Amino acid sequence: MIHQEEISLHTKGRGTYNISPEVESIVSASGIVTGLCHVFVQHTSASLILCENADPAVRGDLERFLINLVPDGSPMFRHIDEGNDDMPAHVRSILTNMDLTLPVAQGRPGLGIWQGIYLYEHRCSAHRRRVTVTVSG
Amino acid sequence: MIHQEEISLHTKGRGTYNISPEVESIVSASGIVTGLCHVFVQHTSASLILCENADPAVRGDLERFLINLVPDGSPMFRHIDEGNDDMPAHVRSILTNMDLTLPVAQGRPGLGIWQGIYLYEHRCSAHRRRVTVTVSG
Amino acid sequence: MIHQEEISLHTKGRGTYNISPEVESIVSASGIVTGLCHVFVQHTSASLILCENADPAVRGDLERFLINLVPDGSPMFRHIDEGNDDMPAHVRSILTNMDLTLPVAQGRPGLGIWQGIYLYEHRCSAHRRRVTVTVSG
Repeated sequence: MIHQEEISLHTKGRGTYNISPEVESIVSASGIVTGLCHVFVQHTSASLILCENADPAVRGDLERFLINLVPDGSPMFRHIDEGNDDMPAHVRSILTNMDLTLPVAQGRPGLGIWQGIYLYEHRCSAHRRRVTVTVSG
Repeated sequence: MIHQEEISLHTKGRGTYNISPEVESIVSASGIVTGLCHVFVQHTSASLILCENADPAVRGDLERFLINLVPDGSPMFRHIDEGNDDMPAHVRSILTNMDLTLPVAQGRPGLGIWQGIYLYEHRCSAHRRRVTVTVSG
Repeated sequence: MIHQEEISLHTKGRGTYNISPEVESIVSASGIVTGLCHVFVQHTSASLILCENADPAVRGDLERFLINLVPDGSPMFRHIDEGNDDMPAHVRSILTNMDLTLPVAQGRPGLGIWQGIYLYEHRCSAHRRRVTVTVSG
């Protein structure tokens, strides 16, 4: 059994956006009790992460780490036509991944209690992002 | 066909733990010959990696790389209530991933001969870690 | 329904190799219209990435970033018997991943228009690389 839906998200620029409720709704709508839930962002400058969902400082620290690791405007980057944050967004997306697969158990995403699903917008400006969710079981 | 089992693991603190035998047993028990095996750690400070399984120095070098990349007690981190190693554990887990999907071929995980499946405990102290394995085919 | 095929690829050393056409062919051959496509490299010194597929400078910048992040011949690495690029290849593979799962929609990999699927060879010399593609739906 396969159930596939698309989520469309308007981001307000760089940062993390909790999409756990949307993913849970799709799993629930699928009627699948045991299986897999695959989440996929159809872009190369946004990604999907599982992150601690209790203290927002965790996501602030993660951003501070990433901006330090992949500095906007670094002279090592030549792909700069779309701005100083474009190539860093590609690198950050590759390091944190565009695909994410979760178990489905008892009709829900089988996450740990501290795990939240976040879309990570790596561009500084607002973007519309498309996410495909596929539930199988 | 779907087969799902949970592994419970007691770690002794930061380091890698070979879970290949447990995953192979579950694939075997599933009776699935061709398909996918999804492995998932239900935490945000432990992850799953595929790593070279012959020379233990590889995992020592990987740890040396990660501790240098994400230093414990770095002043860039504000989420420090649970200790100097807590926020680095979240970052390391996101960089190395909490989910892992393997092919199943001929009734076994279709790994290359040098690939081992390791749970990576990123906290310094001992923890109990839960891993969900879902085999489909 | 499950369809599994293996791709064998001869690389010419470090760099990215577009395997999108091969993956698309296998999805098409599977006859599966809606589902998942799992791609897996059976090695620990090559990986799979989704990357911007229009400007080759992006992949050049990514390589420049990675060689700076994980320097060949770094004194922190002890696993050096097979060469200065061996341990960096393991680290780079773990950071960028050996497994990749894509949605299948309308009988094709459901990629965004700028997403290409690349095998990333991290060793400097030529290698034969095996990739398992599993389509389910």
